[in-house]
Amino acid sequence: MTFAFENATIIGTGLIGASLSLALRAAGFTGTIAAADTNPAALEEAEALGLFDRYHTDPADAVAGAEIVILAIPVGAMGAAAATIGPALAEGAIVTDTGSVKGAVIAAMEGLPRHARFVPAHPIAGSENSGPSAGFPGLFANRWCILTPTHKTNPAALRVVADMWRAFGSNVEVMDIAHHDRVLALTSHLPHLIAYNIVRTASDLEEVTDAEVIKFSAGGFRDFTRLAASDPTMWRDVFLNNKEAVLETLGRFSEDLALLQRAIRWSDGDLLYDVFTRTRDIRRRVIDAGQDTAVPNFGRPAETGEEPEPSASPDTREPNRSVR
Amino acid sequence: MTFAFENATIIGTGLIGASLSLALRAAGFTGTIAAADTNPAALEEAEALGLFDRYHTDPADAVAGAEIVILAIPVGAMGAAAATIGPALAEGAIVTDTGSVKGAVIAAMEGLPRHARFVPAHPIAGSENSGPSAGFPGLFANRWCILTPTHKTNPAALRVVADMWRAFGSNVEVMDIAHHDRVLALTSHLPHLIAYNIVRTASDLEEVTDAEVIKFSAGGFRDFTRLAASDPTMWRDVFLNNKEAVLETLGRFSEDLALLQRAIRWSDGDLLYDVFTRTRDIRRRVIDAGQDTAVPNFGRPAETGEEPEPSASPDTREPNRSVR
Repeated sequence: MTFAFENATIIGTGLIGASLSLALRAAGFTGTIAAADTNPAALEEAEALGLFDRYHTDPADAVAGAEIVILAIPVGAMGAAAATIGPALAEGAIVTDTGSVKGAVIAAMEGLPRHARFVPAHPIAGSENSGPSAGFPGLFANRWCILTPTHKTNPAALRVVADMWRAFGSNVEVMDIAHHDRVLALTSHLPHLIAYNIVRTASDLEEVTDAEVIKFSAGGFRDFTRLAASDPTMWRDVFLNNKEAVLETLGRFSEDLALLQRAIRWSDGDLLYDVFTRTRDIRRRVIDAGQDTAVPNFGRPAETGEEPEPSASPDTREPNRSVR
Repeated sequence: MTFAFENATIIGTGLIGASLSLALRAAGFTGTIAAADTNPAALEEAEALGLFDRYHTDPADAVAGAEIVILAIPVGAMGAAAATIGPALAEGAIVTDTGSVKGAVIAAMEGLPRHARFVPAHPIAGSENSGPSAGFPGLFANRWCILTPTHKTNPAALRVVADMWRAFGSNVEVMDIAHHDRVLALTSHLPHLIAYNIVRTASDLEEVTDAEVIKFSAGGFRDFTRLAASDPTMWRDVFLNNKEAVLETLGRFSEDLALLQRAIRWSDGDLLYDVFTRTRDIRRRVIDAGQDTAVPNFGRPAETGEEPEPSASPDTREPNRSVR
């Protein structure tokens, strides 16, 4: 795979920044990758892991000479980063990002110099782990990357960024900015908010101890704990910067939940059964679309730390994969 | 492993009933296992898979001569099952169950004859798949089984049931009935209700298509689809039979969610950051307690149907397991 650039800079050395560097190398990128992180501890960790070629605490130093700059930082930090790197950018440098909100990031990038070519991008990939050591080269493989160009976006720069994501094994989709922010409010932001909230409710309840919650979490609760372990700064910024779409989606969720609450109170079993039946089909389609695994129970092993053991009971587990 | 009984009957041939039979065999049980299911299709499927020794459509026929009868049916079907099997039970037969609600099941078992020895039990284990083919012998290994004896429970029968679960590799806990129903409302019933509801909200939204929801589900939504694919009849019955505890817990959840909603509307980033930080610790403790896997992203492979590939990037993934 050949890339249209020789000098790349990644701002932010966390899960996404680290994975980007590893993905570039895995895809055969032979140029230079510089990194900047305003957090010296993260930068040191990245250097100890040998994730990049150059390490800078000042983003302006890191972007000097770069043909492409990728911002892998929380959405709320984008405006300040644009102001810092702007004067140091090479003529015609491509600037792109990985933020979960596109409207707010595009507005924040208004501060870049006119010669810079900004391409708004959002890879739909992540993990509950954060920091440089959480990165891995396959994070973006078989996941979607959404590009939301505006009328100002340079078509050549758009192609360079799209080709980069394809080189990582991602599927690239072009989408309207506002539509992106609504789709993600539903498929990503609301699920994280709900997950954070249920874990919080559980830890605040006085009749049930935290120890009991943890002990009996296999009944369903544990599925929510993964999302609720995601990076707090990143998610605070997402909610503050996609306020309108999140509040609208949350309103729908709460209305629907009130209906289920009423059905439970009035013993309306038919309504419950009807809702619980319709939701099954979505699971099947998520699996068919390659966005989740059909292995029962997420392939969770019986004991912690072990890898899943698909061979434990091949006779009975095998048929499940084709069920429904 | 020797068992205190030679003739066992399992009522219900779904995920739990099938797994019970396989777990008995795996633990070295050499006696007879009879099965009953009022659904002829399920019974036929169980027979084709060779899961049991005898197959009956009438539960009364299945329990004849059994020293232990395990009810692995939806909570709402327990009362009718008790009435049907009651007259056919052998003198002093142990009857036990696997229901997610204990108060309602204990009340339903009041219809059993006085000589029968009922032991209320609830294994905290399950899978999103249902039906006879979903069963596997290791379902209960390293999971908790909660027993909620009453003052009428026969101590010898309680020991037989506890020993059976221990033979399956389960950890046995004895708990007060009402406390069980409150703990499970939080750790299992509420998570399922929330998961069903968010998937329902997503599929009803007119601005975002189902296809988009599915395509971009890796952003978080997919984690909820697993629980929302669980058996609709079982879950309808759980909510109708643990109404009070579920409504109380749901009330707490909704209050907490309203606070987050308000924080988003008024841009209270500090409150959001504080809540999102506290929830991380619970995840770590769930993993430490052996109730979930620390493999990032549940060890999900990049492509569907494949097993997770822990060797894909050992250098970068290994450290994650000890992070936090």
